[in-house]
Amino acid sequence: MTATPAPFAAGDYEARMRRAAGAAADAGLDGVLVAPGPDLVWLTGYRPVETERLTLLVLRPGQDPVLVVPTLEAPDAAKAPGAPALTLRDWTDGKDPYEATAPLLGHQGRFGVSDNGWALHLLGLQQHLPGTRYQALTKALPMLRAVKDAAELERLAAAGAAADQAFEEIRKVRFSGRRETDVAADLADLLRRFGHSQVDFTIVASGPNGANPHHEADDRVIEHGDMVVLDFGGLKHGYGSDTSRTVHVGEPDAEERTVHDVVRAAQEAGFRAVRPGAACQDVDRAARAVITEAGYGDRFIHRTGHGIGVTTHEPPYMIEGEEQPLVPGMCFSVEPGVYLPGRFGVRIEDIVTVTEDGGRRLNTTSREMVIVD
Amino acid sequence: MTATPAPFAAGDYEARMRRAAGAAADAGLDGVLVAPGPDLVWLTGYRPVETERLTLLVLRPGQDPVLVVPTLEAPDAAKAPGAPALTLRDWTDGKDPYEATAPLLGHQGRFGVSDNGWALHLLGLQQHLPGTRYQALTKALPMLRAVKDAAELERLAAAGAAADQAFEEIRKVRFSGRRETDVAADLADLLRRFGHSQVDFTIVASGPNGANPHHEADDRVIEHGDMVVLDFGGLKHGYGSDTSRTVHVGEPDAEERTVHDVVRAAQEAGFRAVRPGAACQDVDRAARAVITEAGYGDRFIHRTGHGIGVTTHEPPYMIEGEEQPLVPGMCFSVEPGVYLPGRFGVRIEDIVTVTEDGGRRLNTTSREMVIVD
Repeated sequence: MTATPAPFAAGDYEARMRRAAGAAADAGLDGVLVAPGPDLVWLTGYRPVETERLTLLVLRPGQDPVLVVPTLEAPDAAKAPGAPALTLRDWTDGKDPYEATAPLLGHQGRFGVSDNGWALHLLGLQQHLPGTRYQALTKALPMLRAVKDAAELERLAAAGAAADQAFEEIRKVRFSGRRETDVAADLADLLRRFGHSQVDFTIVASGPNGANPHHEADDRVIEHGDMVVLDFGGLKHGYGSDTSRTVHVGEPDAEERTVHDVVRAAQEAGFRAVRPGAACQDVDRAARAVITEAGYGDRFIHRTGHGIGVTTHEPPYMIEGEEQPLVPGMCFSVEPGVYLPGRFGVRIEDIVTVTEDGGRRLNTTSREMVIVD
Repeated sequence: MTATPAPFAAGDYEARMRRAAGAAADAGLDGVLVAPGPDLVWLTGYRPVETERLTLLVLRPGQDPVLVVPTLEAPDAAKAPGAPALTLRDWTDGKDPYEATAPLLGHQGRFGVSDNGWALHLLGLQQHLPGTRYQALTKALPMLRAVKDAAELERLAAAGAAADQAFEEIRKVRFSGRRETDVAADLADLLRRFGHSQVDFTIVASGPNGANPHHEADDRVIEHGDMVVLDFGGLKHGYGSDTSRTVHVGEPDAEERTVHDVVRAAQEAGFRAVRPGAACQDVDRAARAVITEAGYGDRFIHRTGHGIGVTTHEPPYMIEGEEQPLVPGMCFSVEPGVYLPGRFGVRIEDIVTVTEDGGRRLNTTSREMVIVD
C-alpha cells in the first residue's frame, strides 16, 4: 500500500490564504468570506460541524486572515492545522455574530462568499451592512481551488489508484442474482479497504436503472444479460476519487456493444481534447461530437465532467458555455454517457489532470467492456 | 424492541406544505423557498444530495407546491413520499436554474428561505430578481417545524428511549485505562444497536477535556478519579435523540459532587419552568439562576437548550432574549452545564416536550451521579 502523505503544514495554508486574498484583489473584490465546508478545509484544514452558529474566515488583501468563530468552538478552531496563520475572533451565544463580523468588512465592500455558505448568514451580513455586495465564490473566483500543486496531485493520484484497485476486485464478484445494494456495499468496503476514509457514492445501476444517470442502487436483483453502470468514489487522505466503468453480466448483444463502443470513443475524444489553453467546453464538445455522430446525441443528457479535489465534485465544469481555459494542474472527470430509457445506460469515467503537453489519466483500468458473472 | 412506525404518507406532507404556505401568508410573505436539508425532508420526505445544482421547493399561499429540480435528479424526486402532492419543474444542465425559477416568484415577492440554503442560489435569485426580498426561515417562521404532532412525538420518544438504553449499557463498560474515542465508539455502536440509523455525536469528555463544552472525544486515556461528560445522539426513524449524563470514575471528591448537584438542580429548575405560555428564555433563566446562586454563573457558558425534530439541533432555542412562548408539542433540550477550565465539566441533559400542563421528559435515566469503573 502507499505511504500516508505528510500532512499539510501551517505554511501551506498560509500560502493558500494569501493566494486567495490576492486573487480576490485581482478580481476587484475587497475580500473572500469562507464558510465551513471544502473552501475552509482547503484554506485552513478546519472542519467544524455546520450549524446555525456563524463560523466565517475573512480574507482581505494585505491584511491578516481572521476566523470569526463561536466562543464554544474556539478551542477546536485553535487546534486546526492552519490556525497558526490566522487570528481568531470569537463571539458568544446571545450576541450578534454579524455585528462581530461587520468591522472586518466595512460598509461598502465587495466580497466573494463560499457557494455553500448558509443563506441565514449571508442575509445576516446583507441586513447588517446594506452597502456591501456579494458574489458566489465559484462565479467570482471559479478557479480558486482548481489548480492543484504537486502535493495535492499526489493525493489525487493515490485516491484514483485506490478506486482502480476497488474496480479490479469488484469485477471478480458475482453480480447476477444479487441486489444492486449488495454490490454497492461491496464497493464501499473495497474503497475503505484501499484507504478511503469517506465513501461518497457507490452507484450500481443495472439494466433499465442504468438509464437514469443519477440512480444510486436499489433492491433490483441484477440479472444475466444486464448492463451495469458502476460509478464510485470518495476521499482518501482528504482528496477525491471518482471513476465509472460499465460492465455486462454475460455476453452483450450487438446494440449494447455498439453503445459501449460509442461511449468509449467519446471518452477517448474528450481525453484527447485536454491540453493547456483548450477551453473546458472543448472537452465537452469533443466527447459529445462522437456520440452525436453515432446518433445518440439526445441520449447524452449531462455535462461531460466536473472538477475534483478536497471534494468529489467542484469547478471547473466541462460543459458547453464554459470558456475557462485549462491550466496544468487542473483535475476533473471526463465521463460521457448514453442513456436509453427503459433499457440500459453506459458511462465511462476517468479523472484526468492537465499536464504541460496534454492530459494524464488518474484512472487506468481497462475501458474495454468487462464481462462479469 | 419497539415496532417501526408507519411511514408518513403524501397526505401528511401535503398538510405540512399547506400549513407552511399559510404561515408564510400570516407572516406577510409571498412564499417559502425550501432548500435540500431538514426543511425539505420535513415537507416532502425528499433527501437529495446537496450540490451546486439548484433544487428548490416553492410554496406559495393558495397555489400548488412546485419543486424545481435538475432534470438528472427528477426521477429520484418523483419517488419522494411527498411527490404526489407537488409539481416538478425540471431544468437541464447548461440552462439557468434561476431563470427557470423566476416565473414562480414574481418580481416583487418577499420570501422566507431555508437557513441552510446555499449562498450561491440565494445570490442567483437576488441577481435575477432584484426586486425580491428574502428572510431566513428561522427568522421569518422560526416555529415552522417546532410544534410536533402525535406521530412525530412518538418517534422522538422512541429515539429518546433508545438513547437511554444506550446510557444504561455504557455505564456498565470500563472507562479507566481506555481512550475517550474507545468509549465514544461503544456509544455509537449502542445507539445503532438500539435502532439509530445515524449517529450525530458521541461526546466523551474526560477530566479537563470536560471543561470544553464542544470537546468531542480524543486520544486522552480516561483515569481513575475523572469526571466524564457523555453527550450523544442521532436519528432513529428520522427523528432525533440527544442526552447528556456526567459520570465519575470511582468516588468523586467534595467539589465534584457539589458541582454535579448544582447542575442537577439547575436542570430540574429548567425542566420545571417548562409550561405552555412560558417564554423560551424563562427556561434558560430558571436553570441559570440556580447556577448563578451557587457561584458558578460565569462557568455556564452556553445557552440552556435547543429544539429537536428531524434534526438534532434546531429552533426553538432556550436562550436569554428568546421571547417565543412555549406551545404544547414543542420538543427541546434542557442542558445546563458548569465548566471549570483545566479541571472538569458537568452537563446534564434531557429532551423535554411541552404538554398541556407542563413538560414531559423524553429521557428518564437517573440524573444522580453514576459511578463507573
